[in-house]
Amino acid sequence: MSGGARDPGRTVTSRTLAILGAFDLHHPRLTLTEIAARTGLALSTVHRLVGELEEWRAVHRGADGRYQIGRRVWELGQLAPDPLQEVAHPWLQELFGGTGENVHLAVRDGVEVLFVDKVYGKRAVPIVSRTGSRLPMHPTGVGKALLAYEPGWFVTDYLSRPLERPTPHTVIEPGRLARELAQVRAQGYALTHEEMTLGSCSAAAPVLVGDRPVAAVGIVVSSRRVRELPRLVDPLRAVAAGIARDYRAAVTRG
Amino acid sequence: MSGGARDPGRTVTSRTLAILGAFDLHHPRLTLTEIAARTGLALSTVHRLVGELEEWRAVHRGADGRYQIGRRVWELGQLAPDPLQEVAHPWLQELFGGTGENVHLAVRDGVEVLFVDKVYGKRAVPIVSRTGSRLPMHPTGVGKALLAYEPGWFVTDYLSRPLERPTPHTVIEPGRLARELAQVRAQGYALTHEEMTLGSCSAAAPVLVGDRPVAAVGIVVSSRRVRELPRLVDPLRAVAAGIARDYRAAVTRG
Repeated sequence: MSGGARDPGRTVTSRTLAILGAFDLHHPRLTLTEIAARTGLALSTVHRLVGELEEWRAVHRGADGRYQIGRRVWELGQLAPDPLQEVAHPWLQELFGGTGENVHLAVRDGVEVLFVDKVYGKRAVPIVSRTGSRLPMHPTGVGKALLAYEPGWFVTDYLSRPLERPTPHTVIEPGRLARELAQVRAQGYALTHEEMTLGSCSAAAPVLVGDRPVAAVGIVVSSRRVRELPRLVDPLRAVAAGIARDYRAAVTRG
Repeated sequence: MSGGARDPGRTVTSRTLAILGAFDLHHPRLTLTEIAARTGLALSTVHRLVGELEEWRAVHRGADGRYQIGRRVWELGQLAPDPLQEVAHPWLQELFGGTGENVHLAVRDGVEVLFVDKVYGKRAVPIVSRTGSRLPMHPTGVGKALLAYEPGWFVTDYLSRPLERPTPHTVIEPGRLARELAQVRAQGYALTHEEMTLGSCSAAAPVLVGDRPVAAVGIVVSSRRVRELPRLVDPLRAVAAGIARDYRAAVTRG
């Protein structure tokens, strides 16, 4: 959010991208004034650039006059190369088919987990993850599963920051978290109980290529059924291993 | 593909967007020279703008030196508002769960169908549709299901163009196609047999809101199993009706 009118050296491209970047999960619909406020650009600049973005269908003006990201961006985003999603989806499908539970796939992006795929049915418990959404690592099963396999310096850095506490059950004490991660590593999977959302618990396993955690597969069930989690661990780990195998093969093929 | 150096009036924003638009399903990875050729922009301009796009992670340079669309665009694309995909996914999941067949959801975009979701497993027959991909309307089940409910002028226009013929079985004779569309409308679903891909046949039903076809649900099976298609029609139509109902409710809620 550097200045716009106050930053004449900023290029037009960076201004255009800043406008697109003003939209996020918490701000999916914005007025021109809101875009100007979020980017620090002059309203006249926003007006002109949004007009060009709209013409290209990168943004779309809704019935309420607010702008939203357009379907053309969605379509373009489908070109982002991701052999991981490609190979993982049928495995997630199998896991959902075999268990009837919500399953999702996440990768680490910075210090967060980014959910890249999700398979869910009509009967399963609603889960907070949404494709394209992000959550902190330490309160989520997939986050713990990924964090446990990151290098020591990364984990130390992570634990030294102030950690969010979405529920009273979230473990945020660094020493306890470090011990938990060691246990995840020893057993090959993570379990959480109402650490992200009250009423939900989860199991997750890392997708390991070599010793690098390229993703994690998670399964979320209602806390009322926490006792069923252990029986889900074996199918979960089998699917994580299957994804790792297919992913390695896909990457090797080029 | 209007001129670049030859078109000094073209704005920086439109040039930046032209670079993003140079990527498509048939050209997912491009060198700077290829981008210049596809956009008509000067190589020096492409070099500078791609640098800015790369910095923002809108594009990503692969190990082979070619550029690809970056994950940030994928993430941004997830913000494109689509209550349709949201309400349809669990229904597609049910249809897949109940039949074990590949199912997909498509909308009309221009004179093509755009595939917006797909549910597939490890055992099902591979299908040509890919999320984010487009196909012509007349050879595909979902395309016929949509076309049948478009207004008369649209259909007349569509049929008056030269029509692609991906296989020898593709119906392209306007009179015969028009009769087929009338039949689709009368029975409420479309069937195709090897019209898009040899070895595959499909059934599809429109998702009708009022009398507007907002999407179509399709199911694809191997031609060897063409006789099983009729038994898939009832579950298919039930799911299309369910999606229409939930979609209407979602749109009404706002």
